[in-house]
Amino acid sequence: MTATNPFTSTERRPHVEGPFHAHELGLTGRNSGILLESLRHDVTPTGLHYLLNHFDVPYVPAEAGWKVDIAGRVRNAGAVSLDAIKLLPSRTLRVTLECAGNGRGLLTPRYPSMPWTGEAVGTAEWTGTPLRDLLDRTGLLDDAMEIAFIGADRGFDRGHEHDYGRSLKREAALSEDVLLVWAMNGTPLLPQHGYPLRLVVPGWYGMASVKWLRRIEALNKPYDGFQQISSYQYRPAPDGPTTPVTLMRVKSLMVPPGIPNFYTRARMLDAGPVAVFGRAWSGGGVPVSKVEVGVDGVWREAELEPRPGPYAWSSWRFTWNAAPGEHELACRATDDNGDTQPLEPRWDSGGFGNNVMHRVQVTVR
Amino acid sequence: MTATNPFTSTERRPHVEGPFHAHELGLTGRNSGILLESLRHDVTPTGLHYLLNHFDVPYVPAEAGWKVDIAGRVRNAGAVSLDAIKLLPSRTLRVTLECAGNGRGLLTPRYPSMPWTGEAVGTAEWTGTPLRDLLDRTGLLDDAMEIAFIGADRGFDRGHEHDYGRSLKREAALSEDVLLVWAMNGTPLLPQHGYPLRLVVPGWYGMASVKWLRRIEALNKPYDGFQQISSYQYRPAPDGPTTPVTLMRVKSLMVPPGIPNFYTRARMLDAGPVAVFGRAWSGGGVPVSKVEVGVDGVWREAELEPRPGPYAWSSWRFTWNAAPGEHELACRATDDNGDTQPLEPRWDSGGFGNNVMHRVQVTVR
Repeated sequence: MTATNPFTSTERRPHVEGPFHAHELGLTGRNSGILLESLRHDVTPTGLHYLLNHFDVPYVPAEAGWKVDIAGRVRNAGAVSLDAIKLLPSRTLRVTLECAGNGRGLLTPRYPSMPWTGEAVGTAEWTGTPLRDLLDRTGLLDDAMEIAFIGADRGFDRGHEHDYGRSLKREAALSEDVLLVWAMNGTPLLPQHGYPLRLVVPGWYGMASVKWLRRIEALNKPYDGFQQISSYQYRPAPDGPTTPVTLMRVKSLMVPPGIPNFYTRARMLDAGPVAVFGRAWSGGGVPVSKVEVGVDGVWREAELEPRPGPYAWSSWRFTWNAAPGEHELACRATDDNGDTQPLEPRWDSGGFGNNVMHRVQVTVR
Repeated sequence: MTATNPFTSTERRPHVEGPFHAHELGLTGRNSGILLESLRHDVTPTGLHYLLNHFDVPYVPAEAGWKVDIAGRVRNAGAVSLDAIKLLPSRTLRVTLECAGNGRGLLTPRYPSMPWTGEAVGTAEWTGTPLRDLLDRTGLLDDAMEIAFIGADRGFDRGHEHDYGRSLKREAALSEDVLLVWAMNGTPLLPQHGYPLRLVVPGWYGMASVKWLRRIEALNKPYDGFQQISSYQYRPAPDGPTTPVTLMRVKSLMVPPGIPNFYTRARMLDAGPVAVFGRAWSGGGVPVSKVEVGVDGVWREAELEPRPGPYAWSSWRFTWNAAPGEHELACRATDDNGDTQPLEPRWDSGGFGNNVMHRVQVTVR
């Protein structure tokens, strides 16, 4: 597409439109979303949780010997073994995680990266030690204002060679819900989900939940890693000012009713009462207050079930009396902050935070 | 792309070139391959085995009550419960499975379908009952010449509404290695891999291994299901004669050395001795006899380990003394039949059986 050297060029890639480039297809082959029909499951089945891995999955044949370096503005710097972390009290949280780039592929023009349509989400039971308990033992110095988390995954992006890393501000990092996780759905982490140790930051888009965690560094100034300051920034105008991507925005998805056409995924269903259902979630522990279902542009409120925990998606359900013909179904959620999914995508230069309503075309016979 | 009705048009879709269409991207989002770095694992980690599912994954909340109808040219027709099948003697086989469409996306022009590059492969330990043992108890009539296997997954393809189904000739079906499988890598099948019961046909491309198995029918004539006679046919000329897709062709893949660029996946590595390694396999239980590694077009033989079973891929390894600059690495395997991977793709109208050598571009610093 461009003749620039991918190892040295620091330019943002030019936006694209229309069909998808081979590199976008390559990323889609590596990074998988859920199958929409798997939204039936309260907890996403193993292997169907979305994945967005920037670089190669590190090869870790066994967890024995895995250590995390604790460094920077702490009283007791040094390496802590995973075995020692596992001896601390643990918690299990059901958490819905979504990729910040989910919906990027629906924007026009779009930034050339992973062109998610809408499936970059999943819910799992994560088991680990609250980061706070480890930091309590390590002793944060008073001037530690950010905590950086560095993974074992290494590569290049826009000319920067780096290990994947992200930071949280001190107060966010000290929430009891930020976990150092070693198990997912009751079994050891899979390699592609961060084996043997990862961070999980509930309520945030997935980029905060650093995998293959190797290093925790307390800083007395803002973290300047590439993934913190040069990526994961909202940029509503191509060269305009930026704001950091943080909490997930309110969103909903439905299980497409009926049966599909193999190639187009167009849906066919029989006339009569149809159960339309799916999931909805928001960020930062904010509850979803309402889900509406649109049938050919007419919106009605769905039945919303109480969520099973502060960070897990909610179930919703709506009965539609389907009449023969072509129809468009849609869903949109509203959260307790009063934020509602937009009917059209909000454009973003990097393709972040697109929480447009979910639409499904169906043919009723 | 075309205005034809996906539910009624029986036409093959016109071939395409260049960038990838939204429907191709959609299929890539649903159907995931392995990550090449996961070739390090003898058995593909859970969640990374390739998936090609034509229609939606059926929702099966529990295996209790699952039954398979045995019908047609048998002495004792009727439903057999999964519980009863599990009481029969079981076997565990390590099997490498590959999608017949693997490599379709590398062809020019290509058939618009799942545009696999090269990652549609995986190796698992499958546990189940030999189909033969069930058929022995059922009693095949002498005129049963084919056995058809029908799954619970239903949809449309080129105007045909059908449950996914495939058949095997009597003698192939009666091999002791064709299994009715309920466990993968020691745990119950995941929904996306055919829970609660599937067929596994070792040595064949994956289309033969019908998932969510609901019906077994013994026929005294060739099975005429859509996936048997209208799809999965080699067609070397666009409108020429066809031959059925059956056994896997010889193939090899390597773990790309070095570290990647996020977007292009271009590789960077340090000069000096580099371990180049990967896996190789063929179909029908035929062993791989040789793997060669090409460095800038010069081929040398790799070290090949004995395979761990008649249907599992073999490991190979080669040490390359990398000098700074741009290089192309490649691998190609040869099997005991004398078949070798071609240096250029063999074109096929439907994009089946492309076993071209694997090539990786690297920059050495």
